[in-house]
Amino acid sequence: MQRLSTDALNLDGQGELYKQLYLSLRQQILSARWSTGALLPSERQLAADLNLSRSTVQQALQQLVAEGYLQPQQGRGYQIVNTLPDNFFAADTKSLHSSNWQAQDYGLTAKTMSHSGRLQPGLTQVQQFPFQLWQKLQQRHSNRVALCGMADPLGYLPLRHALVQYLRQSRQLVCDENAILITAGAQQALFIAAKLVACSGQQVLMESPGYPRLKHALQLAELNLGFIPAAGTNGLNPDLLPPNSDVKALFLTPSHQYPCGGIMPLTERLRLLNWAQATQCWLIEDDYDSEFQYLHRPIASLQGLAGGKGVLFAGSFSKTLFPALRLGYLVVPPELAGKASAIQQALHGDVALLPQAVLADFIGEGHFNRHLRKMRRYYQQQKQQVVSLLQQHFPQNRILAQAAGLHLTMLIPGLKDDAALCQQLNFHGFKLQPFSRYCFLNEPERGLVIGIADADEGRLSQLIPLLQSLLTKLD
Amino acid sequence: MQRLSTDALNLDGQGELYKQLYLSLRQQILSARWSTGALLPSERQLAADLNLSRSTVQQALQQLVAEGYLQPQQGRGYQIVNTLPDNFFAADTKSLHSSNWQAQDYGLTAKTMSHSGRLQPGLTQVQQFPFQLWQKLQQRHSNRVALCGMADPLGYLPLRHALVQYLRQSRQLVCDENAILITAGAQQALFIAAKLVACSGQQVLMESPGYPRLKHALQLAELNLGFIPAAGTNGLNPDLLPPNSDVKALFLTPSHQYPCGGIMPLTERLRLLNWAQATQCWLIEDDYDSEFQYLHRPIASLQGLAGGKGVLFAGSFSKTLFPALRLGYLVVPPELAGKASAIQQALHGDVALLPQAVLADFIGEGHFNRHLRKMRRYYQQQKQQVVSLLQQHFPQNRILAQAAGLHLTMLIPGLKDDAALCQQLNFHGFKLQPFSRYCFLNEPERGLVIGIADADEGRLSQLIPLLQSLLTKLD
Repeated sequence: MQRLSTDALNLDGQGELYKQLYLSLRQQILSARWSTGALLPSERQLAADLNLSRSTVQQALQQLVAEGYLQPQQGRGYQIVNTLPDNFFAADTKSLHSSNWQAQDYGLTAKTMSHSGRLQPGLTQVQQFPFQLWQKLQQRHSNRVALCGMADPLGYLPLRHALVQYLRQSRQLVCDENAILITAGAQQALFIAAKLVACSGQQVLMESPGYPRLKHALQLAELNLGFIPAAGTNGLNPDLLPPNSDVKALFLTPSHQYPCGGIMPLTERLRLLNWAQATQCWLIEDDYDSEFQYLHRPIASLQGLAGGKGVLFAGSFSKTLFPALRLGYLVVPPELAGKASAIQQALHGDVALLPQAVLADFIGEGHFNRHLRKMRRYYQQQKQQVVSLLQQHFPQNRILAQAAGLHLTMLIPGLKDDAALCQQLNFHGFKLQPFSRYCFLNEPERGLVIGIADADEGRLSQLIPLLQSLLTKLD
Repeated sequence: MQRLSTDALNLDGQGELYKQLYLSLRQQILSARWSTGALLPSERQLAADLNLSRSTVQQALQQLVAEGYLQPQQGRGYQIVNTLPDNFFAADTKSLHSSNWQAQDYGLTAKTMSHSGRLQPGLTQVQQFPFQLWQKLQQRHSNRVALCGMADPLGYLPLRHALVQYLRQSRQLVCDENAILITAGAQQALFIAAKLVACSGQQVLMESPGYPRLKHALQLAELNLGFIPAAGTNGLNPDLLPPNSDVKALFLTPSHQYPCGGIMPLTERLRLLNWAQATQCWLIEDDYDSEFQYLHRPIASLQGLAGGKGVLFAGSFSKTLFPALRLGYLVVPPELAGKASAIQQALHGDVALLPQAVLADFIGEGHFNRHLRKMRRYYQQQKQQVVSLLQQHFPQNRILAQAAGLHLTMLIPGLKDDAALCQQLNFHGFKLQPFSRYCFLNEPERGLVIGIADADEGRLSQLIPLLQSLLTKLD
């Protein structure tokens, strides 16, 4: 058995501590600098040569033993284990680095950087949020040990209770505490809904124009995805639904079509329910911003109209409170609650409890309704202002905007590349979205989807001339 | 056009308010009490007959117009819309309620109620957590408007920065801020990893015995799932891996096999890396509790050993801090960061920002390492105590426990039904898990998986005689 000298180890004795010694030895063993089976210098020798304490050397060597690089030889010190496979040492580290392990992409667009911008659809006016109050509620719960452990798989019960009260009253929902699943946002609710009603390869439908991130969720679930036109003022057109089909589910936004703003009237809703019943197709009602209807109370939900049968109802607090809260919900028929929760557990596990407890109080103590009333007035004014300014300065364009919601769409006839236009706007800090991004059927129309939540006068007076000049240039 | 009388409307005038009026009228229209096309009494008439203010009546009727139940007839009042499909009214409401829409179950166990119990695997000792400090850090961030909007899709940058420092140092990971994805817990990290490397129907492998919730995630992803024995003290046995195969990924817990406690030595790790490279199979390293190794520093990660290539590394803060925090991470090769983030966005969207900001400070300011050192000592004592008590009172049983982790496994030869035993224990507030639940190959051995985090003397002195008497009864 060869005994190495300390010099052969190529260690820098000056100030070398446990960690450096360990790493250096490990790296040298792995790089096959010495043959397997060789004995290291004794602890004492190493300590003396490297000017280290005996215990530092011992610690490093014992760590290497624990990890299987060295084995102690009774009375003889430490040996480099001779069961390390030789071909590992022989392996060219470059070939290890240039392998072609494959990853899936599901047609999703990779995304590593993003930032919020002005007039971005999906943003809310967080400046108006009562943070002090929220913080007070948060403090009330933040040292509750019970909120640190494992949760009820459907979500924090007091929140479910408060939410069900609210949804019954404001959306005429048919549901109770045991048929609602608290989710980490609406996106999760939509993905759970998709997995609940369809397996990979099965057919589902969604609206076009529609919500790109719903499309991404359905692609990720590997579903066979079809599209139904939904651009009119009445939203999705039920006459275009396939009469006999194997469609497992239809995802839609009946209360305020996204992004075209259509509101589905009762007759269409009833025709749709009839179709769904006849074809045994689930309806997934995405109720993403029904709280912000400015002329009337929100239209009663499809779910309520159907008596809770055959409809899953998804909502979130991203629009009503703030996006980073990441809380949403999925209302399901009672017999599916267990399955929905099992899917969430497999996908994600429990949802964080502290924000659920804070939100339960925020709703239960009336702050939520108060905040909604305030924001409804606020956003209504914002929206009116944006619509009238756009109509005034771009009379040739069609504005798709009803008295609802936090966004609007402006179609721009003759514009060739709305994505390029948005990129230009982005340079100036505006994050409007190209309408073509929402269109999944045929040749899309071009235009802009504009968030109105943060549309104050200063921003608008900057946007309008900018947009005018960009449109002239792109002409 | 028929004009209805107020009496025909069947309304209770006493104290009827807007909401009741609206709901009652809507329900009656839907139940086809009156023919479509009929005119309602005039606003004035209704107000007088029901003893309501004119504006209350108006509000209810306008809401019904907005929802498409009524249409105003110039000068004649409100008409029940005659485009409501007749068959909707004719539909037997019972048939609507007894439909057979199908839901998927993926072999997942439905779950609507759960509670934490004593000695439950996966729990931590939350009493030891520095809540006051956490709360102080939370307050520091809780009114930051920037934390309410949309996030960087990889996660909050200061947290990624702090985490990468920590992982490089403690786990010898090869990674940087742009190749780590903050997730809402380890379960999400595992699901994202599965979707990143395999499509539905493709083959992946996991350990048996292994983590049931990982199995659930892979079932939900509709993967073709195989199992590799991993019960030995060295964890997964690489000799049992298929030499030539189409396996896309192998999920494993090399640092502390779950739940058998094996620790994979270096030789096995190197053989495994060679196999993975030869078969182009991804390794998904689930590093769920490596922070709690009591005799040595944690063994360096597979990911680090492989120079960051071909290995995805998942971890969480559920064990080190507390389960309901719901933060974890997935380290990926840099070229896959965008895809991993796109999958997370489709699945879930951003992760809540406030806890990320708090955690970033907790790690960055040294509290995390301090807490780990304290808990390592604490849990080590707990574990020693549990092991020696069990060995003393159940000498015939085999204890699978190394000097690591927050759980141990006791095999009970001759026991027929460990699930029934756990149910009995559950009646007494103990939530031990049946070992057979973790076994996915052949005829499982029977036993108990026991969490040690909350195993104080009181609980143990209650558990031991209870277990003795139950085992005698079940004999």
